[in-house]
Amino acid sequence: MKKYLISKSRRLRSTPFTSRIEKQGVQGYTAYNHMLLPTTFSSPEEDYNHLKEHVQIWDVSVQREIEISGNDSSKLVQLMTCRDLSKSKIGGCYYAPLVDSEGGLINDPLIYKLDEKKWRICIADSDVLLFAKGISSTKKLKVDIFETKINTLAIQGPKSFKLMEKVFGKDINNLKFFKFDFFNFNKKKYLISRSGFSKQGGFEIHIDDVKAGLDLYDYFFEIGKDFNLKAGSPNLIERIEGGLLSYGNDMDIGDNPFECGFDKYVHLESDIVFLGKENLKKIKEKGIKKKLMGVKIESTTISVNEGIPILDLDNNKIGELRSGAFSPRFKKIVGIAMVKKDFSNISQKFQIKLNDKLVSGEICSLPIL
Amino acid sequence: MKKYLISKSRRLRSTPFTSRIEKQGVQGYTAYNHMLLPTTFSSPEEDYNHLKEHVQIWDVSVQREIEISGNDSSKLVQLMTCRDLSKSKIGGCYYAPLVDSEGGLINDPLIYKLDEKKWRICIADSDVLLFAKGISSTKKLKVDIFETKINTLAIQGPKSFKLMEKVFGKDINNLKFFKFDFFNFNKKKYLISRSGFSKQGGFEIHIDDVKAGLDLYDYFFEIGKDFNLKAGSPNLIERIEGGLLSYGNDMDIGDNPFECGFDKYVHLESDIVFLGKENLKKIKEKGIKKKLMGVKIESTTISVNEGIPILDLDNNKIGELRSGAFSPRFKKIVGIAMVKKDFSNISQKFQIKLNDKLVSGEICSLPIL
Repeated sequence: MKKYLISKSRRLRSTPFTSRIEKQGVQGYTAYNHMLLPTTFSSPEEDYNHLKEHVQIWDVSVQREIEISGNDSSKLVQLMTCRDLSKSKIGGCYYAPLVDSEGGLINDPLIYKLDEKKWRICIADSDVLLFAKGISSTKKLKVDIFETKINTLAIQGPKSFKLMEKVFGKDINNLKFFKFDFFNFNKKKYLISRSGFSKQGGFEIHIDDVKAGLDLYDYFFEIGKDFNLKAGSPNLIERIEGGLLSYGNDMDIGDNPFECGFDKYVHLESDIVFLGKENLKKIKEKGIKKKLMGVKIESTTISVNEGIPILDLDNNKIGELRSGAFSPRFKKIVGIAMVKKDFSNISQKFQIKLNDKLVSGEICSLPIL
Repeated sequence: MKKYLISKSRRLRSTPFTSRIEKQGVQGYTAYNHMLLPTTFSSPEEDYNHLKEHVQIWDVSVQREIEISGNDSSKLVQLMTCRDLSKSKIGGCYYAPLVDSEGGLINDPLIYKLDEKKWRICIADSDVLLFAKGISSTKKLKVDIFETKINTLAIQGPKSFKLMEKVFGKDINNLKFFKFDFFNFNKKKYLISRSGFSKQGGFEIHIDDVKAGLDLYDYFFEIGKDFNLKAGSPNLIERIEGGLLSYGNDMDIGDNPFECGFDKYVHLESDIVFLGKENLKKIKEKGIKKKLMGVKIESTTISVNEGIPILDLDNNKIGELRSGAFSPRFKKIVGIAMVKKDFSNISQKFQIKLNDKLVSGEICSLPIL
């Protein structure tokens, strides 16, 4: 594949770790929340194999954190999401689909509750700040909303637990999944969550001091050899197999939470107030017409630059492939597709045109087993 | 400069013209509104010289168009901008700063009035759709809001007028600056505006039919030889010299319209209703504390990956360089900087650290003369 110059700027900015990862041989980038996100170091397959066996450090500074504080902060956060946060606890991370009044997906962030009046929305790739500003400006809510200067390093992979213990001490492994707490290294306190965009286990370290963060990064590599630590990034193959959805790829504002399998995060029976409640009730009553599913395709190479039509055996469009990659495990393409409800059954056969050739595929579960 | 793979996806998507421009030798990209924007074909300097002498065709599909229609559409559009649109006319393009309730800049789009109840907001790089959705969801406005499938080609440069005449007929040159109308080519009607992100003159062709758009693109190159037509892109040097601001680079939500020199688009005396009105009144009364200015710097190479501090002669920070490029015309760096009001006078001297070396510069006007 051809390589290009990437015109860096204040608008599409580097992260504090960009110069590090460039020395470490990053091969590819994408853009995410107006910032650079590394995508490949060796090759997608080698990165995948390494991630599943060892441990990687990822520069995921692109997971920008929108802080909402003030007397009306809980009200505003709840207005944006269909997940009931009324019983949420300080120290919890809540995966929460954000929806507009029609029930269309705005983002699928992890929401951190720092305090009864202080939240951080750790966002996927869309300007949630502007959605929040639109609501708060109109309702005249008493809130402070801003994008923090936090940059996040993810430590992911089966050896992440041992590695993190060596840096932050034994207590780090008492942290439960989707919880966060504060841990010390080198006299500096870090908010660390047990979370991350892989199914291999790990943590996310939220860094608010660039200098300290760079020292921490370097320290990881000083002691990381025993764990075969490498610089890495969210891996397309691994996240598709694991059924980890990517906003903008697998779903967007044209889709609702039910279509994306988020049913357990849609709380229509509780008395919470959120923008999309009435319309999501109607949608639930009527039933959905399309659904996000896993797919396997009998081919070995793919590049999904936009949605690719999925066809029935008579060439009628029955869906759209939204993400796809060659899986070394299945020895074929695995992907995520939005398909018409009637065609969303496991083992449903379909065809798809890749590189001007029709190839066959079938619907499967998500995660892909 | 090192080149990288760019991981294309549905989330960071190609445009209908990407395969064309890759065959034509595009060298560099940036990301803009979740889409690829070409930045360099030959070199920034060669592209600049060619643009100022001949004519270029730019794939600016990234200028996404948010359509707002319905009974409350004018109300919603006005709520978002400090520019008085009450006397706006169908067929007009209105450069209009969008602001939140604090007066912070959300975007600086060109707003097209298609009808009394139909607007298209041709956006810079931020998710205006979500801001609009946040407001309309809260106010329960009767509007339809969506991102259109329009992709835009800009024809820019001094020879654009003759070239466009050859394709669309003599009438095209009766179109006044910042007006739009409909013109035919090959039995297809195109919305064309006299606009574009350069100071060299030209048009933007808004394409809603991909197949026809590709044919049009190819036709331009069939007949373009006489005009020395080349594929190009918005040019960093030319737009800095011309004082054309770039949202996310030169200004963002932390800045207000007065600080960016948008005074003539801030209509506080009229009886229009917009979100930031009260706060902009206060800001105007108090006076601004910083201002966007041109700068010239005594150096020949620069890469602005984030804001770079501008220092007084005692090394105190007095501002931030936000865009910069070597100018073949001035034989030094030209740039755009946000500087403290007290230091914003023409010819004010400053220093700046570039590549670990302090170099001197001075404040100048925008456009840079």
